Amino acid sequence: MPLGEFELIERYLSRLGARRDDVLLGVGDDAALVRPPPGLELALAADTIVEGVHFPPGLPSEAIGHRVLAVNLSDLAAMGAEPAWALLTLTLQRAEGDWLRGFAGGLHELARHHGLAVIGGDTTSGPLAATIAIAGFVPAGQALRRGGAQPGDELWVSGTPGDAAAGLAAMSGKLDAPADVLEPLVRRFTWPEPRITLGQVLRGVASACIDVSDGLAGDLTKLCEASGVAAALDSSLLPRSAAMRGATDPVSAQRFVLAGGDDYELLFTLPAGIDAGELQRAGGVALTRIGSISPGFGVSLDGAPLDRDLVLGFDHFR
Amino acid sequence: MPLGEFELIERYLSRLGARRDDVLLGVGDDAALVRPPPGLELALAADTIVEGVHFPPGLPSEAIGHRVLAVNLSDLAAMGAEPAWALLTLTLQRAEGDWLRGFAGGLHELARHHGLAVIGGDTTSGPLAATIAIAGFVPAGQALRRGGAQPGDELWVSGTPGDAAAGLAAMSGKLDAPADVLEPLVRRFTWPEPRITLGQVLRGVASACIDVSDGLAGDLTKLCEASGVAAALDSSLLPRSAAMRGATDPVSAQRFVLAGGDDYELLFTLPAGIDAGELQRAGGVALTRIGSISPGFGVSLDGAPLDRDLVLGFDHFR
Repeated sequence: MPLGEFELIERYLSRLGARRDDVLLGVGDDAALVRPPPGLELALAADTIVEGVHFPPGLPSEAIGHRVLAVNLSDLAAMGAEPAWALLTLTLQRAEGDWLRGFAGGLHELARHHGLAVIGGDTTSGPLAATIAIAGFVPAGQALRRGGAQPGDELWVSGTPGDAAAGLAAMSGKLDAPADVLEPLVRRFTWPEPRITLGQVLRGVASACIDVSDGLAGDLTKLCEASGVAAALDSSLLPRSAAMRGATDPVSAQRFVLAGGDDYELLFTLPAGIDAGELQRAGGVALTRIGSISPGFGVSLDGAPLDRDLVLGFDHFR
Repeated sequence: MPLGEFELIERYLSRLGARRDDVLLGVGDDAALVRPPPGLELALAADTIVEGVHFPPGLPSEAIGHRVLAVNLSDLAAMGAEPAWALLTLTLQRAEGDWLRGFAGGLHELARHHGLAVIGGDTTSGPLAATIAIAGFVPAGQALRRGGAQPGDELWVSGTPGDAAAGLAAMSGKLDAPADVLEPLVRRFTWPEPRITLGQVLRGVASACIDVSDGLAGDLTKLCEASGVAAALDSSLLPRSAAMRGATDPVSAQRFVLAGGDDYELLFTLPAGIDAGELQRAGGVALTRIGSISPGFGVSLDGAPLDRDLVLGFDHFR
């Protein structure tokens, strides 16, 4: 990063997110210092987003700043963790004040909303990419994992997966519908909402959980592999948003729902008989039962094995 | 990252570094889970290295894997922290087994040497870059910081800074000397050695500390600004390695020593009268007194203010 790095970090990136009493030293030294709470476990994750791979060139910088934090918060949500601290590393071709102000603003808003402090990181020159490493708290032994699903469990998903992929398709002119129909889908891609509250509500209740980042079918396959079980999806149960129904035919909609990524909804399993209505109220997002868990391996849809291309997901940048 | 991401992560990146009892869940879920030790503070840092910015294209992947961890370990060293856990995010144009095996091997060796476990991260497609976020332990209140230097303190540095920059110059054909003279310099650039032991030895002794990543003059300026003091360098005291003396004239050598980056030595201040011989034995690296701290601001060399271009450092990729 050329000459102005330090000034730019100081101006835009040194005070992002919430103020927290457990941050003893933030941006400005060789490392940050934090005081972890006694008796809790730390959930640690890191995700990178790269221009042209994870988001289209020209996406507003506010949305990029929001996105790099949202994808990492979603990893904490999937573990049932409470967000605490993040490190940001930002790679830029050149540092422009307007761009940085937007990026910082998008990141700051989401961080503050979830009580998370950005405590350090790095800025460097190069092709546009951003990485966040995130830390959150989980009561000992209570983290949600991918590997706990049991035969007989019900399979649930939050929100309406597929909307973000349809929104991305709309942004690249691949979906033909009136702008007001497409707008909610585009918003779902541009401003993903990590399910932090739901993740914490599911602690001690869900038997397994994963976030839907690579597509429902692919992420469900990972959950099944980690748990050593099979899943049966019922196509009639798959949720479709009003916008999805308005913008696509039923066949395309089903592909978006099953193979579209970037939704950052939670996919989880519940022992039969749990009152999901209570979870839905506490979690603040609609929950839909979409199938069931059985012995064996693999994912089926209405009784037939899923197509491999649905499991792999479809990525418009591939 | 295209189809083979998960197989590649599993094969090369899922078991890097030391095994640690405080890692409850490593690579393979949405986040890793660790148990922080009671009563300690955590030092957290993250640094990215980008091909063509922080290292030349064609650097062996072993050295890239070593480097991305070394620069982060150096941040922990500068705080006096004990390495514990790291998250790796790796961006690659395409995943090749040979390249990944080398990268993983270089990273693994250094991680294991320092008892650090790589517990998670992300792999994605894009221009070659690697980021590590690192966590280490420091006894409460004992971290080294940049801001504690006092007038009357002595200024010290470990090793022979400048060697790495001279080595990089040699690699790009900008230093003309016999290969056996240049080889130790090239090695210093290619295999930087973070001063983890020295950092821990300096806890409770050094009044301020920073690692020399951007050049001695520039990093000293940061230490002075954080401490609110001035520093006076004595050019006759600046250490020069035998290789540096053999490969360059005295004027160039002084530029490399003051402005060259990438050494990852520690620059620190000691109250007058400390027995540095004991610190040197315990820290495992030569220590040299190079000047003193006084009231005021700025850095001087033999009584005259330092040139601004020395303070900014010189980067061959800029």
